[in-house]
Amino acid sequence: MSVPLDISAYCNDLGQRARVAAQTLATVRGAVKNRWLLIAAERLETAADAIITANARDVANAPEYGLSVAQIDRLKLTPSRLSAAASGLREVAALPDPIGRVIDGSTRPNGLEVRKVGVPLGVIFFLYESRPNVTVDAAGLAVKSGNAIVLRGGKEAFHTNAALYNVLHETLVETGLPADAVQLVNVIDRAVVGELLKRDDLIDVVIPRGGESLIRRVVSEATMPVLKHYRGNCHVYVDRAADLELAERIVVNGKCQRPGVCNATESLLVHAEIAATFLPKLGQTLSERGVEVRGCQETRRWLPSAKIATENDWGAEYLELILSVKVIHTEEEAIAHINRFGSHHTDAIVTADLATSQRFIGAVDSAAVIVNASTRFHDGSELGLGAEIGISTDKFHARGPCGLTELTTYKYVVVGSGQIRE
Amino acid sequence: MSVPLDISAYCNDLGQRARVAAQTLATVRGAVKNRWLLIAAERLETAADAIITANARDVANAPEYGLSVAQIDRLKLTPSRLSAAASGLREVAALPDPIGRVIDGSTRPNGLEVRKVGVPLGVIFFLYESRPNVTVDAAGLAVKSGNAIVLRGGKEAFHTNAALYNVLHETLVETGLPADAVQLVNVIDRAVVGELLKRDDLIDVVIPRGGESLIRRVVSEATMPVLKHYRGNCHVYVDRAADLELAERIVVNGKCQRPGVCNATESLLVHAEIAATFLPKLGQTLSERGVEVRGCQETRRWLPSAKIATENDWGAEYLELILSVKVIHTEEEAIAHINRFGSHHTDAIVTADLATSQRFIGAVDSAAVIVNASTRFHDGSELGLGAEIGISTDKFHARGPCGLTELTTYKYVVVGSGQIRE
Repeated sequence: MSVPLDISAYCNDLGQRARVAAQTLATVRGAVKNRWLLIAAERLETAADAIITANARDVANAPEYGLSVAQIDRLKLTPSRLSAAASGLREVAALPDPIGRVIDGSTRPNGLEVRKVGVPLGVIFFLYESRPNVTVDAAGLAVKSGNAIVLRGGKEAFHTNAALYNVLHETLVETGLPADAVQLVNVIDRAVVGELLKRDDLIDVVIPRGGESLIRRVVSEATMPVLKHYRGNCHVYVDRAADLELAERIVVNGKCQRPGVCNATESLLVHAEIAATFLPKLGQTLSERGVEVRGCQETRRWLPSAKIATENDWGAEYLELILSVKVIHTEEEAIAHINRFGSHHTDAIVTADLATSQRFIGAVDSAAVIVNASTRFHDGSELGLGAEIGISTDKFHARGPCGLTELTTYKYVVVGSGQIRE
Repeated sequence: MSVPLDISAYCNDLGQRARVAAQTLATVRGAVKNRWLLIAAERLETAADAIITANARDVANAPEYGLSVAQIDRLKLTPSRLSAAASGLREVAALPDPIGRVIDGSTRPNGLEVRKVGVPLGVIFFLYESRPNVTVDAAGLAVKSGNAIVLRGGKEAFHTNAALYNVLHETLVETGLPADAVQLVNVIDRAVVGELLKRDDLIDVVIPRGGESLIRRVVSEATMPVLKHYRGNCHVYVDRAADLELAERIVVNGKCQRPGVCNATESLLVHAEIAATFLPKLGQTLSERGVEVRGCQETRRWLPSAKIATENDWGAEYLELILSVKVIHTEEEAIAHINRFGSHHTDAIVTADLATSQRFIGAVDSAAVIVNASTRFHDGSELGLGAEIGISTDKFHARGPCGLTELTTYKYVVVGSGQIRE
């Protein structure tokens, strides 16, 4: 008879340890955090054999968890993928330290010196699925930004994550950082997640990454703030003043370059004035690339092979080679459609007209609005933030890619010489 | 028989109007918003008679609502108080527009132009108590920052708020801004609040101001983010290296200058090495100012007239002329006490020692950490932000005073010339 695990005590212990580690981590110098990142990167490479052996166990178990071939491929670690994860840590080490940065400041008329200074959020609870490099990325970003992190990976990557965690944990101890700065939930029971989501006294923010249903469940249970996006239904609107060759390149790249990610293009809006020229040629290219088109009635006039789109298609995040297409008659209609059916993630316009681009930028209520480029550029690294832990479609705290800075808050530091208020 | 109000329909209508107004407001030029602020300011002054007559009705009803003499004084409008509210709007007009400000930006190696641009949050639901100038302040800050606002004042200020709202509403229409940019909940039934707190599809953020129990109720019911502080238990720690004359001035100012506000000093920590010199003299001054001292055993050795403090006193926000006093033996003990019993609002140290001040600044986990000045300076205007809608002790989104910038979020604007991802 196995002793039942006391979930509440387990979570309390985990959270308390994280809280204590976060207090220490908040005032650790940048050089120490960078030293850990570089040593951990090196050790991941020297421990490659052990990590890949552990990963092989997960890969062997994958069919049992019902993983698809594509999912198994994403789960699989190779020496080059492990090196890429190590390089990620080295890149984080090279980024500026967000802690202690002076965001703003002034000297007041009464001589008070006011500074707004970057400080960590505290404890991050991170939930994510299969890809093992995410374990390494998240730990690196959290520690560099002065936060303790509690990692909860998918059960399908259990042994891989444990092996990666061992390296991260050993090197934390070795470099004199708090051993509990990075912790891994090693209990598969889902009750652990529910229990941790209750503890806003111990956890400052939860970051869930995965399918929409997982994220909705986390949002409904969490007592602390959640950094998240539900889905990415990204639009490209091809304006009547678009360069059509350029438009085709942008649509095809957005749809085909990596269809399974949140910034892939899912919906195309085409201005009626250029539909007759644009759609037949685009349809030919998409067909060659194996893309299924689901269009409105007017689309099917110019692209008879397209399936009929239903209302559900306008809001869908396919994550595969399917594209919804709608012919619209004004820019206002395009903007209204995007704001209604989109996911406020990434929406693009292709146009040569400056005023049209300005109206689109102003009125589309999305985390990233793109003019004349692929939606695939909405990414921390592509936008110049460095590595990211996720993309937010919320308006509160952080919007768009969440890198080091987005994992911090600030405090006001006010230094005087005896000032009082009259 | 009166027809029962359909609360759900009422709230839906209110929220939908606010949402539509917010969409328009998001792209209104700064000059138009400033014009409204200036006209509304003028009109508040010319409508002074009507507003003060309405206020007199509330003042007459005040005893019925059980308001204290101090509360009635706060509720009462005079021509000079109304002029002060009008001046507040003029000051907001003079502040830089947070909408469209470029927060950050770069040109990427592939030529993509990336800008991070300030945009409104959307719709603000603001709950607050008696002081009528808050109605005017909040409306001004919301509109200037491009947000629609739904105001819910206390029932004790019902007629005053309606009169103020009339002026704000008329001038919105007159200047061509959306009439629903500012709305006032004119139903006293508390069910309206519960219903609006469910509508995260219509409201982007709720800002409650008032007692801790009100705020806790809002947090537990709200489905959208809440910008808030529960209470202000602000500490002054007098270090052994303090200038004692300066320390006394700071403690007396923090406690006595305006005892009923959140940044008033509630708790004093005194280093044991200077307790014998500092406490008797301070005790004399506090006694002359009518302050009741509640101290630990060691405090009472030097201040025998002090009452015995209980554990509850360490966490209390008195909001009146009472001060808790504790003698501590190390800086670490002071920091630990503040982080445990404080409210993460405003905490000050008095010291002449630079390293001591640096350790205190680093380790005290509060929205504002103050060195050698009164806790009363934690205020948007005093810290250079201009007017504020409240103070946040949260770490997510905004911390400290919440002025115009804190009522905004941002979007990424990316302008290219046909870039695709390889």
